[in-house]
Amino acid sequence: MSYDGFVGESRVVIVGGGFGGLEAARKLARQGIRLTVVDRHNYHLFQPLLYQVASAALSPGDIATPIRSLLRRWPHASVRLGDVTGIDIANRRVQLADGAALPYDALILAAGVRHSYFGHADWEPFAPGLKSLDDALEMRRRILLAFEFAEVNPAAQDELLTFVVIGGGPTGVELAGAIAEISRHAIARDFRAIDPTRARVLLLEAGPRVLPAFSEALSARAKRSLEKLGVTVRTDCAVTRVFAEGVEVGSEQIRSRTVLWAAGVEAAALARSLGTPLDRAGRVFVEPDLTLAGHPEVFVIGDLAAFTQDGKPLPGLAPVALQQGKAAAENVLRGLRHEPLLPFRYKDRGIMATIGRAAGVAQRGRLRLSGFLGWVAWLFIHLLFLVGFRNRLLVLFEWAWDWWTYKRGVRLITGSSSAQQASDAVSQRREPR
Amino acid sequence: MSYDGFVGESRVVIVGGGFGGLEAARKLARQGIRLTVVDRHNYHLFQPLLYQVASAALSPGDIATPIRSLLRRWPHASVRLGDVTGIDIANRRVQLADGAALPYDALILAAGVRHSYFGHADWEPFAPGLKSLDDALEMRRRILLAFEFAEVNPAAQDELLTFVVIGGGPTGVELAGAIAEISRHAIARDFRAIDPTRARVLLLEAGPRVLPAFSEALSARAKRSLEKLGVTVRTDCAVTRVFAEGVEVGSEQIRSRTVLWAAGVEAAALARSLGTPLDRAGRVFVEPDLTLAGHPEVFVIGDLAAFTQDGKPLPGLAPVALQQGKAAAENVLRGLRHEPLLPFRYKDRGIMATIGRAAGVAQRGRLRLSGFLGWVAWLFIHLLFLVGFRNRLLVLFEWAWDWWTYKRGVRLITGSSSAQQASDAVSQRREPR
Repeated sequence: MSYDGFVGESRVVIVGGGFGGLEAARKLARQGIRLTVVDRHNYHLFQPLLYQVASAALSPGDIATPIRSLLRRWPHASVRLGDVTGIDIANRRVQLADGAALPYDALILAAGVRHSYFGHADWEPFAPGLKSLDDALEMRRRILLAFEFAEVNPAAQDELLTFVVIGGGPTGVELAGAIAEISRHAIARDFRAIDPTRARVLLLEAGPRVLPAFSEALSARAKRSLEKLGVTVRTDCAVTRVFAEGVEVGSEQIRSRTVLWAAGVEAAALARSLGTPLDRAGRVFVEPDLTLAGHPEVFVIGDLAAFTQDGKPLPGLAPVALQQGKAAAENVLRGLRHEPLLPFRYKDRGIMATIGRAAGVAQRGRLRLSGFLGWVAWLFIHLLFLVGFRNRLLVLFEWAWDWWTYKRGVRLITGSSSAQQASDAVSQRREPR
Repeated sequence: MSYDGFVGESRVVIVGGGFGGLEAARKLARQGIRLTVVDRHNYHLFQPLLYQVASAALSPGDIATPIRSLLRRWPHASVRLGDVTGIDIANRRVQLADGAALPYDALILAAGVRHSYFGHADWEPFAPGLKSLDDALEMRRRILLAFEFAEVNPAAQDELLTFVVIGGGPTGVELAGAIAEISRHAIARDFRAIDPTRARVLLLEAGPRVLPAFSEALSARAKRSLEKLGVTVRTDCAVTRVFAEGVEVGSEQIRSRTVLWAAGVEAAALARSLGTPLDRAGRVFVEPDLTLAGHPEVFVIGDLAAFTQDGKPLPGLAPVALQQGKAAAENVLRGLRHEPLLPFRYKDRGIMATIGRAAGVAQRGRLRLSGFLGWVAWLFIHLLFLVGFRNRLLVLFEWAWDWWTYKRGVRLITGSSSAQQASDAVSQRREPR
């Protein structure tokens, strides 16, 4: 298997500067391959810690690094800020929203996923999801404003102090735990008219247990840790409607002004432009070597790819994306040398999630950690993989500080007209329909 | 002089949680006075370092601290997020945009200033000013995007790589120096189609010299330091028009896609609602004891106040606001004890400004520092006054890192739809009118 015209001055285009795309870019750049990374943001984001920005523990700069600086040392590696609108597979061109078209000899698609509302796009304004830095800042704004509004609006206090997190995967569990900690510790003594520790935090999971990817025992441990923090965990609880004043679960109405979405994702719209089969979540079915069927020059990796191993689809995790990025880059190099492409195989390095300031669950093969040990494992691994030495030190410092003082250092309400919106929210008391 | 009904359970309202308002609040809170601080943001901002957020050296969280946490230890001190729309002096009430009215026995107005376009409000969209965190993030976005656009838009490269800073005061000087450093060092090797070190940075000052508050010799030193960094300094250069493609100085047109405003400020609109005499910049004339004439219960301090000392108005500096905040709080306490109020007198602690990574100017009485020594003085004083121990350590760390590596750690383009705007800017090439 080899590529037509894929020699010497060949061009590789990588769509997406996340874990998979960046890993592939670095590996190819090191081999002297000419490449372009296209991303709609100018930064690589350490997604697993995004919930910490949303919960005011870390600053955006702690978990994001400009893609340009990560690739700066390779003059033949360039970065293009832009929105990819489609792929012209026949003519081997990546189409951008600004009208440019990038020709490629090999293409690696790593555009990731965005949150999905299962066909209820109208829920989005009431229940923001968490995929970008801007998402995280919006969540932070909403969480912090809810307490501010409650302080000055006694009539709506109950619904303002009710936080609903939809989805019991790692993001939902981590968010719910973080909100409970904010209310119980960080701002416990900051208000006069309200008692933040009275805030209700509900975690709603449609399935029978939280963290379904973990063993049942660890799921149960996670649930208990959450409850110890003050989170009300409700399983088998499918949300049927999200609206301005809260959520509905069947005939039950839960009134809440802050609903956060951690329930589902779907592949970037880009996947549809390929004209190839997609799975239920819009992910692209790929061959064992990560290519599109019939297109050995097009690779799809990370969250965007539907890759089946041992009869099960691989989960949307950073380690999967990293390993696939490496494998795709290797296959691009093999193609260059006219060698046959190799099939990809995911090596399970384990999964983990954290619950608040001193509990976590981790699972690797037969190894199971929970409680404080699980948390230490989580801490260690996340620091280890955080890109960029400066960020790692900064994050360690912020964590140590927050942990010691129970504070959350970045409790800033930004985003223009926050006071204006505060006014609106207080003056226009929304009534139930 | 004493206040009617201003005893025991008296209420003090402080409008504005900046240097002056916060200082007054802390002093009064320590004495057990019941008070409310009203601010449209939930954070106290260390304004003198705001330009470092705008130039991607610091994170918003490094220079901002929630007002609530700064006042948390005093249960009788409360914080109210809200927009003050007017003061009902006759009935002693502070009117908020959300409809609430806060009654007071004594009032301290410390609402500060915002940037002013000297009657040209239409210039604002093309030349953002720098007063809030959101302003700083918008500046950062524009500066970083200009390089991104230049990389993909050869036709408009010259105007995209021309940065114009209007106003040669400390903010303008610091911004211009920072932009020059970004282009010369931080991102020098990050791009492929452009050479960022070729970027032109122009500092335009209407008066005869930059930093007019300093001695002529220090002004000249500052100018030379700026030029060494690559900034083109133009004095006696009054901008007559700002538009989408640049600025006009008389008949000369300077084409630039990134124009930043550091030229003028005017008092918060609130001043007008008082119905008392204002100076040219809209600031409120106050009595020697910082009160409004005929209203010994209303104090106006900081940038909002027009205070004349030795025949000259005091400048809008943090030390002035701090000293006035302290003095106003003391006078409030004196009023409580039915003692006569004391006149305020500003003790000049000196002024300073920094130019890039290793030069600064400082002046105190007859002492004059410039170059590296001026910079060290600046560094030391700013770290010393940065509110909050955590921030101080973090900032020191970020500075040390940036200084050592010539990097700027927070080069993130945030603000929704940044890629979309990038696309727009590239595809809709604006032509001169």
